[in-house]
Amino acid sequence: MTEPVRIGIVGLGTVGSGVVRLLLDSADHISRHAGRPIIVEKAVVRDIHKVRSVQLPSGTLSADIREISGDPSISVAALLVGGLEPARSIMVELLENGKDVITANKALLAEHGPELFELARRKGRSIAFEAAVAGGIPIVAAIGECLAANRIESIRGILNGTSNFILTRMEEDGSSYAEALKLAQSKGFAEADPAMDVDGTDATQKLAILAHLAFGVWVPWADIPRTGIDGLDIDLLKYAEELGYRIRLVAVVSRAGSKLAMRVAPALVKIGTPLAETRGAYNAVSIVGDAVGRMFFHGLGAGQMPTASAVVADIIDTVVGRTAITFRTTGLLSVETPAAHISGVDSLQRHFLRIRVSDHPGVLAKIMGILGDYGISIASVLQHDATGLADTGVPLVIMTHQCASSAVRNAIAAIDQTDVVRGKSFCLSVLDD
Amino acid sequence: MTEPVRIGIVGLGTVGSGVVRLLLDSADHISRHAGRPIIVEKAVVRDIHKVRSVQLPSGTLSADIREISGDPSISVAALLVGGLEPARSIMVELLENGKDVITANKALLAEHGPELFELARRKGRSIAFEAAVAGGIPIVAAIGECLAANRIESIRGILNGTSNFILTRMEEDGSSYAEALKLAQSKGFAEADPAMDVDGTDATQKLAILAHLAFGVWVPWADIPRTGIDGLDIDLLKYAEELGYRIRLVAVVSRAGSKLAMRVAPALVKIGTPLAETRGAYNAVSIVGDAVGRMFFHGLGAGQMPTASAVVADIIDTVVGRTAITFRTTGLLSVETPAAHISGVDSLQRHFLRIRVSDHPGVLAKIMGILGDYGISIASVLQHDATGLADTGVPLVIMTHQCASSAVRNAIAAIDQTDVVRGKSFCLSVLDD
Repeated sequence: MTEPVRIGIVGLGTVGSGVVRLLLDSADHISRHAGRPIIVEKAVVRDIHKVRSVQLPSGTLSADIREISGDPSISVAALLVGGLEPARSIMVELLENGKDVITANKALLAEHGPELFELARRKGRSIAFEAAVAGGIPIVAAIGECLAANRIESIRGILNGTSNFILTRMEEDGSSYAEALKLAQSKGFAEADPAMDVDGTDATQKLAILAHLAFGVWVPWADIPRTGIDGLDIDLLKYAEELGYRIRLVAVVSRAGSKLAMRVAPALVKIGTPLAETRGAYNAVSIVGDAVGRMFFHGLGAGQMPTASAVVADIIDTVVGRTAITFRTTGLLSVETPAAHISGVDSLQRHFLRIRVSDHPGVLAKIMGILGDYGISIASVLQHDATGLADTGVPLVIMTHQCASSAVRNAIAAIDQTDVVRGKSFCLSVLDD
Repeated sequence: MTEPVRIGIVGLGTVGSGVVRLLLDSADHISRHAGRPIIVEKAVVRDIHKVRSVQLPSGTLSADIREISGDPSISVAALLVGGLEPARSIMVELLENGKDVITANKALLAEHGPELFELARRKGRSIAFEAAVAGGIPIVAAIGECLAANRIESIRGILNGTSNFILTRMEEDGSSYAEALKLAQSKGFAEADPAMDVDGTDATQKLAILAHLAFGVWVPWADIPRTGIDGLDIDLLKYAEELGYRIRLVAVVSRAGSKLAMRVAPALVKIGTPLAETRGAYNAVSIVGDAVGRMFFHGLGAGQMPTASAVVADIIDTVVGRTAITFRTTGLLSVETPAAHISGVDSLQRHFLRIRVSDHPGVLAKIMGILGDYGISIASVLQHDATGLADTGVPLVIMTHQCASSAVRNAIAAIDQTDVVRGKSFCLSVLDD
């Protein structure tokens, strides 16, 4: 067997520890796939005295990034810290010093992708990032390599495990949003500050990366219309179930002429369809290609070892040389790549509305009249006994026939200006297939 | 842009025509992924005068394989003919003459894999075969590359689109097996001679290839216990549905000590689980890895363009150089690779039995007594009004609690030797997760 490859690891948090554990526990198996042993030469952490769940030989830990970037025996580094800084500066230092980099940091790529890819290209290095999107699901390889013969028509995915865990707990246990969030935090799925998960930011950044791979344009993630799950309540889930649906945080992108129609938002998905059956911390991605038709992938989207599985696959790919080829040929973005023109999703689909109204005669007729004025016809209405709800309003739940999202938004705006509405009206898209 | 790559195509049947169409229609897109244009220099067919659905420039068609193997300008060839001969001889000639080969022929690899891989390795060439298993689903790449950090624990798949199409038609339309088979043939899913599809051979050969990739041993496909769907009837599907299940042709492999437990057979899969929701010509594969957990893939497993999507992805991978690396590093089999020790599947699971019995007092007690003697306990029994069925026997449908398959097989053998049984008893495994 040839000489071992010496790698550096930056960050020994949940994912970094998982990567070290996998490299140690499955060393034989991994070296067979890589053609030679992979050895962790240095692990750089903020605090070298912190007690850790994985044991590395003494002298391996360091608090100084130059122990990796300045070590010519290290050719490959895994950057496993989150957030934008110091992650960005570290990535720059690693690339400047000729290291191939593997990362799981989707925020970093969604924010600084063009400069970082450009720098890597200039230095003749590569960046691999399978773990940045959908955890253990090999979706980056699927889009960039396996489906390369296809023009991608659309992608639809559940990309945030924390949000999906919370929604699943609410629907299965009847927990409130707050209780389910607390449980997600106690199980380690949600960060102490879960804002980026539940407000849709994390899923949006992942969608921007997938859209870039699929459509070859640079997608500024902040331009993608986004709604999180943080405004949902248990009643919405119950009404959806009564109509035969579950609610999932769904990220979508599809071609719309020269634009990309994109959105991250909670949507109703029909019970029995693959997205509705995606539960707990699982992620799912459905891709339609012109030749292959609809492909569906499902797997653990978060968690220590599923993410480590993707990182180590990238380390192997980088060591054997596949990553360098892919990085060169898939035409990843540069600073000159034009940004995508993003539009909201305005396709014809059914919509689910919940409007809280005052409990007076004529209110239903008024609401229906406004919907009719905007050309929206109704498939079904749910209104339960509302005794005692006079203050917060009586929930009126409406499923529309197919109509444009823009028409529904306009109708809701008009309805919310009447004097019969109490509180915020909800409108969610319905995905029937 | 660099010089075009000139490739040869052997066979312009369904898949070959699809590959040519994709290379022509998506030439821009594909050349961007391959880093240069891909041009079909020669297509070798049996009859150059046959009218074809794709147009190639005059002079491209030939009936002589040496027009590809002997042309030094052609470095890559796609072998898209089925069966063992002349496919094997053509592959040998292509490899001997220094061509990298892409193929969709699973029978050829399952039968002659070791010699062919060995020859390719000796000649410094590669063989790519994504399209040989599960059509458009990138399962070969997933196991060989994307999940390389994992020790694979088990694989479970629906790998034959024809069988799945037939079963779906039977359960959705109430068609007989014969009617559904005829429809599959008229739709082009089943061959004129569909024997290899419906007797389980095709799925078994694909399972042997997946098991080789996942476990690194050579799996003689004919040693894998196999039952097709050709003995099923509509009543079995109806009883299964009554109990909350569908019937699918399921291929399974899992580690069992130093052996591989393998089987291809119809099995009951719980309605709502991913395998049960795999309908029509779709394929599905579920893989459990020690790090990644359970991954699930679903997509079109047959048909012209999904298969062409996989072939062209392999052509791109070969042209850019990824295939050569993968072929060298995944440790594909050679003539020296030891053959796997294959055992049947004897894990604890529930079983579904249908026994046709004579309609006499005491028969049920006798059957139950024999099952009890073999330690098999019963979860539920279905017996419908059997007026008029005296000749063919009264169907007695039994769902057992968890027990070893061997115990059930022995009990059935004992039951079939009694004088109360009419016709062949059926025993299918039940997959509850």
